[in-house]
Amino acid sequence: MGRRSRAHRSMPFWLFVFIVGSMALHAASRLADADEGMWLFNRLPNAYLRKKYGFEIDRAWAEHVMKASLRFSTGGSGSFVSPTGLVLTNHHVAAEILHELSTPERNLYENGFLARSRDEELRAPNLELLQLVSIEDVTDRVQAAVKPGMKPAEAARARQAAIAAIEAESTKKTGLFSQVVTLYRGKEYHLYRYRRFTDVRLVFAPEANAAFFGGDPDNFEYPRYCLDMTLLRVYVDGKPYRPEHYLKWSPRAPHEGELVFVSGNPGRTSRQLTLDALKVLRDHRFPYTLNLLRRWEILLQQFSLEGEEQARRARDDLFGIQNARKAYTGMLMGLQDPTILARKAAEEAALRREIGSRPELKDALHAWETIRKAQKTYVDILVDYALLERGFAFRSQLFRYARTLVRLAEEDQKPNTERLREYQDALRPRLLQQLYSPAPIYKDLEVVKLADGLSLLAETYGYDDEFVQKVLQGKSPRQRAAELVDGTRLYAVRERKRLAEGGIEAIRSSTDPMIQLALLVDPRARKVRKRYEEEVEEPEREAYARIADARFAIRGTSEYPDATFTLRLAFGVVAGYQEDGRRLPPWTTFRGAFEHEARHRRKEPWVLPESWHRARSKLNLDTPLNFVATPDIIGGNSGSPVVNRDAQLVGLIFDSNIYGLTADYIYSEKRARAISVHAHGIIEALRKIYAADHLVRELLAE
Amino acid sequence: MGRRSRAHRSMPFWLFVFIVGSMALHAASRLADADEGMWLFNRLPNAYLRKKYGFEIDRAWAEHVMKASLRFSTGGSGSFVSPTGLVLTNHHVAAEILHELSTPERNLYENGFLARSRDEELRAPNLELLQLVSIEDVTDRVQAAVKPGMKPAEAARARQAAIAAIEAESTKKTGLFSQVVTLYRGKEYHLYRYRRFTDVRLVFAPEANAAFFGGDPDNFEYPRYCLDMTLLRVYVDGKPYRPEHYLKWSPRAPHEGELVFVSGNPGRTSRQLTLDALKVLRDHRFPYTLNLLRRWEILLQQFSLEGEEQARRARDDLFGIQNARKAYTGMLMGLQDPTILARKAAEEAALRREIGSRPELKDALHAWETIRKAQKTYVDILVDYALLERGFAFRSQLFRYARTLVRLAEEDQKPNTERLREYQDALRPRLLQQLYSPAPIYKDLEVVKLADGLSLLAETYGYDDEFVQKVLQGKSPRQRAAELVDGTRLYAVRERKRLAEGGIEAIRSSTDPMIQLALLVDPRARKVRKRYEEEVEEPEREAYARIADARFAIRGTSEYPDATFTLRLAFGVVAGYQEDGRRLPPWTTFRGAFEHEARHRRKEPWVLPESWHRARSKLNLDTPLNFVATPDIIGGNSGSPVVNRDAQLVGLIFDSNIYGLTADYIYSEKRARAISVHAHGIIEALRKIYAADHLVRELLAE
Repeated sequence: MGRRSRAHRSMPFWLFVFIVGSMALHAASRLADADEGMWLFNRLPNAYLRKKYGFEIDRAWAEHVMKASLRFSTGGSGSFVSPTGLVLTNHHVAAEILHELSTPERNLYENGFLARSRDEELRAPNLELLQLVSIEDVTDRVQAAVKPGMKPAEAARARQAAIAAIEAESTKKTGLFSQVVTLYRGKEYHLYRYRRFTDVRLVFAPEANAAFFGGDPDNFEYPRYCLDMTLLRVYVDGKPYRPEHYLKWSPRAPHEGELVFVSGNPGRTSRQLTLDALKVLRDHRFPYTLNLLRRWEILLQQFSLEGEEQARRARDDLFGIQNARKAYTGMLMGLQDPTILARKAAEEAALRREIGSRPELKDALHAWETIRKAQKTYVDILVDYALLERGFAFRSQLFRYARTLVRLAEEDQKPNTERLREYQDALRPRLLQQLYSPAPIYKDLEVVKLADGLSLLAETYGYDDEFVQKVLQGKSPRQRAAELVDGTRLYAVRERKRLAEGGIEAIRSSTDPMIQLALLVDPRARKVRKRYEEEVEEPEREAYARIADARFAIRGTSEYPDATFTLRLAFGVVAGYQEDGRRLPPWTTFRGAFEHEARHRRKEPWVLPESWHRARSKLNLDTPLNFVATPDIIGGNSGSPVVNRDAQLVGLIFDSNIYGLTADYIYSEKRARAISVHAHGIIEALRKIYAADHLVRELLAE
Repeated sequence: MGRRSRAHRSMPFWLFVFIVGSMALHAASRLADADEGMWLFNRLPNAYLRKKYGFEIDRAWAEHVMKASLRFSTGGSGSFVSPTGLVLTNHHVAAEILHELSTPERNLYENGFLARSRDEELRAPNLELLQLVSIEDVTDRVQAAVKPGMKPAEAARARQAAIAAIEAESTKKTGLFSQVVTLYRGKEYHLYRYRRFTDVRLVFAPEANAAFFGGDPDNFEYPRYCLDMTLLRVYVDGKPYRPEHYLKWSPRAPHEGELVFVSGNPGRTSRQLTLDALKVLRDHRFPYTLNLLRRWEILLQQFSLEGEEQARRARDDLFGIQNARKAYTGMLMGLQDPTILARKAAEEAALRREIGSRPELKDALHAWETIRKAQKTYVDILVDYALLERGFAFRSQLFRYARTLVRLAEEDQKPNTERLREYQDALRPRLLQQLYSPAPIYKDLEVVKLADGLSLLAETYGYDDEFVQKVLQGKSPRQRAAELVDGTRLYAVRERKRLAEGGIEAIRSSTDPMIQLALLVDPRARKVRKRYEEEVEEPEREAYARIADARFAIRGTSEYPDATFTLRLAFGVVAGYQEDGRRLPPWTTFRGAFEHEARHRRKEPWVLPESWHRARSKLNLDTPLNFVATPDIIGGNSGSPVVNRDAQLVGLIFDSNIYGLTADYIYSEKRARAISVHAHGIIEALRKIYAADHLVRELLAE
């Protein structure tokens, strides 16, 4: 997903990590009567589809849709949609490209782009598209590498070696990019071969105001009215690529209740969480995180009110926080919906019954107790962990640099394997890249954020607490923050380099106040991290593995694996839903977009582009613009094509509604919906708003 | 203070009560080296003034300033400023009047008003101004009513009777409105006689955009640029009143460091709080309240984003919450400033030493321990009290009605004196007025607020908690809220009346879901309230009284009493201050206002009126507009005149800066500042922007 992506993949990484913590990415779950699942293309749920929809996916259909689908290196999905290599994806998946291709004179992100001819198509400098062309189960070969008597670490190394060999061999043999994907938490290994496209050119993008109409307030909401699309074209050898498989435009709009499919690359799910763990999210972790997010949101809002420049400085941070706040609100709301947790409870109870009935698996039942205990510990240390180890009490880039420098020096005293994981050699390049980043640091924003963090520290432990007083040194949070930010020299990349290269001696002899603060905080932070790793992370890892083993033993591959940012097929129906006693329609129209704009008196972010207003009289205002459907999607699915039984394109995924935010850990079709741009809306807009008839002809060509 | 007043008096009453709780309003404190104090006009700090400023207030000066000062029935202050009865106050003190005098065609609040001649002056329908004309110490007479051997309740009644007799006698004798004011927590009783003015007419008001330039974001901030003024005129017998005492305009602007005085009616202070109690505010009560405020602010912001009408519905609530959030942020920041609490600690230590050295007072030392214990209990029950008794888990007007109806029925079963205080007969008219209010109730907003409250309940006690489940009845917070709001009939005043008049039988047989919810919640709410009253409120009342007695015995009347919304004199100097390493100037100018507007690109709320832009070239842009000074003020002081040694008008109080928000419980001159409109700025604006030369001539008349 792109820079301003909608789904929660876009939350700041530290936040994502904060919540998701150590949740292993594995296991699977499924209730027989729901349209759940992100299915492997080589293992499609035909029995279910046949029974519920009287439809079966044959090999040709699967191959066609699979090969028409694309994965974007910017972190989203897309598809071939014309015989001459046009690719359809979201505006927000292409946002990075649009920014890169913009010049001070020509802002393509804001104002859109249309190539009137192929000569005008603009090559994206850093974009790679992957087309999955084959899947091969290599589980046996990978597992064969593990010899009896090997210790876990040896076994892991042996498996890694086997995987590397398989990938190298495949690449050599086929010339295709080859990747072994670990599925079902290492129960299966599949070799994915991709064709790579690196010459990709921009053909059409609407204005940001059309693509992201309604902005952040409408994000995760429905009804929606976004033309969140971009067209690119793949070139090979300097000529438009002629794909063997591309999706044809459906001449017919899908009706309510119609079966549709989504082919794309869901990023990551964690559906194995136990009921206890979900309840801890619901009653402790999400509420705590939401309080912090609201705190930061108000803080940055206030800072932004000080002026345009301040607003600019805080913008990215504020967007990320608002997006995360909205996502967490939705996730919490989902967990507070008893019908959703009841499903999870029923499913878990059924699994436990089955496990209990099989003596060889029975031991796995203890795993739930282990997780319950670990979560209890996590609740105990949640606040300490957040403030000290995650560093939320010191929310300053300068402090983060200081802490990295301190830990780097300390960890480098140890053998590689004994270090904290992010300080091990393998991650060193990334660590140094971050540490030496020339990104600007704004003193005023640093002071405001750090002062707020220090206040949070004082509010949490009590202002008179000994540790708090050591941190504050008898000053108010505001004063202390100003003093730290004024006093440090870590602004300069040169100084950070000097300290990093000087090792432990340079750190110990440093008089930089931020380094000294990091030295003061670190022992406490390490202590709570140790407790987390030893009493939460490790026991849980082992316990979830045991549950996954048992589940696999019982259900085998009749379940889908957790998302791995590889190609999957989801399915469901086009369907509106109930909200607060009103029925939301399955689709919206252009008329609705103009009405929505009028309702908000054409105030930002509800301003449709001039081009829309000029074209208004020509538009068929009843043409559908967006629609909602039940397929199981998540971040990474942005840009996925939606197709009907005939494998014809009917839509383009661009968002989930707020109820869909629980998809991380549980699927629901009650109100959770994938939101798509309607294929007919795209044609109407291209034709009547953007005068792109040449593209329409290409898209609708037989 | 008016509708959109700046200081924290404007926070919603329930919030104010939440924080201030049962703090008795009494006692006094003072350090010898600070310009602290809200002094009685009959007991001015001349010794201090003489020593520090070489200035002494004589009788004539005091009488002149006292009689030129006015108290507004809308809750602010003002002063006579011309020989023909012109009165100067704030735009926000007059806001209610401006709204009342507006018509659909003519919005005087937004667009301002200027009477070109006396004929055009508009009479305010509901305004009363009080001019204090004499103060008499009647302590002996009140105390004489108490006979030896009387029980406390008898003594109180006897005192009340004596006060009523004194007031009645004075009114009869003088024809003046007479009021006995209780000072120093009943140690003294002074008889205040007022002249009442009820024919008050609007003469001039600037546009809201000039008066409230910078809006909520600039509220409590400095530098500021607000022309927060209004001119009224007092009429008696249909003719302009010619006051014996009015303030003359100073021809000279005050210089930095110049001694100035503020004569006005500070509303209420609580400066007797012990250090322990302040620390509980700092470490527990303020942080908890701030979390709630930020939660509600984000909630209402999101609701407001849904549309213009939603924004309108949420506006008042949102303004109140933002104002409170800002106020609490400032108050917390003050308490986290160690230099401020250090002063308090030193003062308390000194007092305790003195008490300890006098055997007859020694017992009072236990009072601190009592308060410490009571505050510990308060911390324990803080959350329960907030959610259940304050009702923050049920933040819905409909629920409040339901709870009032339930309690009314139950309390009316008891003898009057045994009821909860707000259900006693004396308060019945006010209770019924609120209960039968025809104010509109918005279903959508009710659902959103109630759902959020129910979610807060679930987050606090855990979703699976038995009580929470009884409240939610197996539904999600959102669903349950919608069901409650849809199902209740308490929208109708008629229905509320029917239930109120039906008494306990009507309540018991009601099937209204909101009534049933109130019945479910009430036993728990009453339990925590009882604990609060018995273990916090009562012990503290008694303990603070003991400390006050001891303090009085030691210091007597060399201290000022806590604010009582009666006329006081404060003093201090015009002075800028340091903030985040930069020096803020003692005053701002018209030039600064335009620059401030430009810095914010003339976006709301930084939009100066057209009249200002038209007049720009004529203005002397270096004329001072606002200034800051150190006098000790608080809510109620809005509209107070600021005068120099010559009792000439130099400014008009309209706000405190954010550091001044601690004034509730502690005075500081480090950064806390009163913000005034500069007298010269007023003249410049009247002359060149508003073409009100006739008023200027009147104001500057000798």
